Amino acid sequence: MSFATSEFDELPDPADGREPPQAFQPPRRVLLGPGPSAVPPSVLEAMGRPMLGHLDPAFLGLMDEVQAMLRAAFRTGNDLTFPVSGSGSAGMECALANVLEPDDVALVAVSGAFGERMREIAGRCGARVETIGGTWGHPVEPEQVEEALREHPGAKAVCAVHAETSAGVWQPLEEIGDLCRSYGALFVVDAVASMGGIELDVDAWGIDVCYSGTQKCLSVPPGLAPITFSPKGLAAREGRVSGPPSTWYLDAALIGRYVGRERVYHHTAPVSMLYALHEGLRLVLDEGLEARWLRHQEVGGELLHALVERGFQPVAPPGYRLPQLACVWLPEGMDDAPARRRLLDEYGIEVGGGLGEFAGRVWRIGVMGASCTSQNVAQLSHALDQILGT
Amino acid sequence: MSFATSEFDELPDPADGREPPQAFQPPRRVLLGPGPSAVPPSVLEAMGRPMLGHLDPAFLGLMDEVQAMLRAAFRTGNDLTFPVSGSGSAGMECALANVLEPDDVALVAVSGAFGERMREIAGRCGARVETIGGTWGHPVEPEQVEEALREHPGAKAVCAVHAETSAGVWQPLEEIGDLCRSYGALFVVDAVASMGGIELDVDAWGIDVCYSGTQKCLSVPPGLAPITFSPKGLAAREGRVSGPPSTWYLDAALIGRYVGRERVYHHTAPVSMLYALHEGLRLVLDEGLEARWLRHQEVGGELLHALVERGFQPVAPPGYRLPQLACVWLPEGMDDAPARRRLLDEYGIEVGGGLGEFAGRVWRIGVMGASCTSQNVAQLSHALDQILGT
Repeated sequence: MSFATSEFDELPDPADGREPPQAFQPPRRVLLGPGPSAVPPSVLEAMGRPMLGHLDPAFLGLMDEVQAMLRAAFRTGNDLTFPVSGSGSAGMECALANVLEPDDVALVAVSGAFGERMREIAGRCGARVETIGGTWGHPVEPEQVEEALREHPGAKAVCAVHAETSAGVWQPLEEIGDLCRSYGALFVVDAVASMGGIELDVDAWGIDVCYSGTQKCLSVPPGLAPITFSPKGLAAREGRVSGPPSTWYLDAALIGRYVGRERVYHHTAPVSMLYALHEGLRLVLDEGLEARWLRHQEVGGELLHALVERGFQPVAPPGYRLPQLACVWLPEGMDDAPARRRLLDEYGIEVGGGLGEFAGRVWRIGVMGASCTSQNVAQLSHALDQILGT
Repeated sequence: MSFATSEFDELPDPADGREPPQAFQPPRRVLLGPGPSAVPPSVLEAMGRPMLGHLDPAFLGLMDEVQAMLRAAFRTGNDLTFPVSGSGSAGMECALANVLEPDDVALVAVSGAFGERMREIAGRCGARVETIGGTWGHPVEPEQVEEALREHPGAKAVCAVHAETSAGVWQPLEEIGDLCRSYGALFVVDAVASMGGIELDVDAWGIDVCYSGTQKCLSVPPGLAPITFSPKGLAAREGRVSGPPSTWYLDAALIGRYVGRERVYHHTAPVSMLYALHEGLRLVLDEGLEARWLRHQEVGGELLHALVERGFQPVAPPGYRLPQLACVWLPEGMDDAPARRRLLDEYGIEVGGGLGEFAGRVWRIGVMGASCTSQNVAQLSHALDQILGT
């Protein structure tokens, strides 16, 4: 699978390092790709505040508040809830590497690139990986999950991607959670692109390990991965029989001693990113989760309508389409890279191209977090009309 | 080994998550601990600039410039040179997990906590780990390294910490680099607290993998770990016989396809942190590496003089003391935690306590990057005089 973006490689020559380059001023973009989304001014401002030590009482107080807000956003009472110091993929690795041991069986639901990534990482943890589904663009049905659980008694975990942004698939989770409890498997969920955008209810849905990313519907810059472990999820880490996980940096037991009451130094937290996440979560909870889900539902509806009117067709079947991220087949005759380049250069609008087997065939258009406005949909529609010559 | 900081655990109650907490305003601190150091205004400002997509041509241009500046700061021509999306410890894990395979022999020089951390992570990679030295506060001699190399023919790597901040030890590297070449071992160096503060010369010293952190002498917020792989270091990753490393997030071969010419998506880069690193490296190169080393040497001399005058004694032997980070035994009768708390609360000055076996017995006082000024030394001296009642 290739994720190449070769159309964008006519880059300026890098500095030779002997003379430092000019200060960088980013161009203004309307961010309608699969993330990062637009970052609100108060979040940008928070990031520019003066530095604090990572063991300063004031910073530890901030970290406590971030954890409390993350619990609210995940809808969980899990004690072990914290931001992983890395991108969403670091959250994925943290989730899988802590609970999977060599020769464990991991059942991974695959509807696109991020399910495939879970499969890859689970394999690197030494697990025996079995795929459920596997067709890009198609959600996994509870019956398929139950069949897999029956075929692999004693499976350690079922893994699923809530919002599969490579294909625009909204994967229902509640029934899968019920099955995991019945069969005694852990339920590991990728909520990178769902948290703060569509309903996510970690405790009610029986999710044991759930991770997200900051740069999607939370509208915080990329660089942190909120994660939560249920008591059962944490017990899987604590009770490992093969020894500690191969990763030290993402070892949830060690990190738990820093983010919990013990305050034992593990690694230096990315302080400025935590300022940003604190402010971003404040905005999310101030708007209210339900209000936020509704906004994504409504604007996502407008987006899909606008796209279909212009000849784009959604990849996912009805009822399983993410409002915050439309993955659509291109209209006949439209050439992917030049059209995206025109959108960026002439209209300052970023949309995403296809990954892997969808490269060149789909666009991924996000209305996530602060990017999720009717005005952005109208601006994109106008630009598309110009480009399509309609 | 416990890194507890229990003296700082009287924290405000965390928010309950139902009502978001107030916006966070960090108190002003003079940062004289072992990092993070003070961040210059233009770096803070850079971090607050508007978001860009991680595949935007403008962002890829920025990344190219960052890589070029990192090569200059590492003094290397290594093609594979990039910022790891995580803290310095992520850099350590990236270095070791890529080049070490199960049953490889890793010889680890230990003078303090970060050498021990290298040992721990090398062990988690499955390597058979042999310690060189092992006494906190004492550098490792080339003779000890040669003895270890003779005892373990075919050892895969020698690992050393250039600036061991837990003990204030300046580890000479050049002769160890020569030995590694003679015996055919890779040379892996932790330069987290040295880059930009004391001489570091990756190519001339024969270092194969070298990683740093942004929040020390580079004076950029924590959250990125510059790293560089020599062709031999990269070949160790590419030629692994046991399969890919267990970490996907830190797999240098995959990351190399994003930061290199191919531009293949791997994970979402922490865009705002890259803005900050770009600006921070500009300031470093604008000052000039040699000028910067000299500044650290001079101010570090003033710091040590001021500390010794007040009854503190350096841990490391003469000739092996880091200018940018003094690790000193406390004057007789001085009580660690209350004195540090007074410094913080009454004077707004942060210094670091001891780690592990040094907890309660030493302070770690840093003058790194933008924190490295004579004025800061004078301000600390004044505060210490008040606290010590001299």
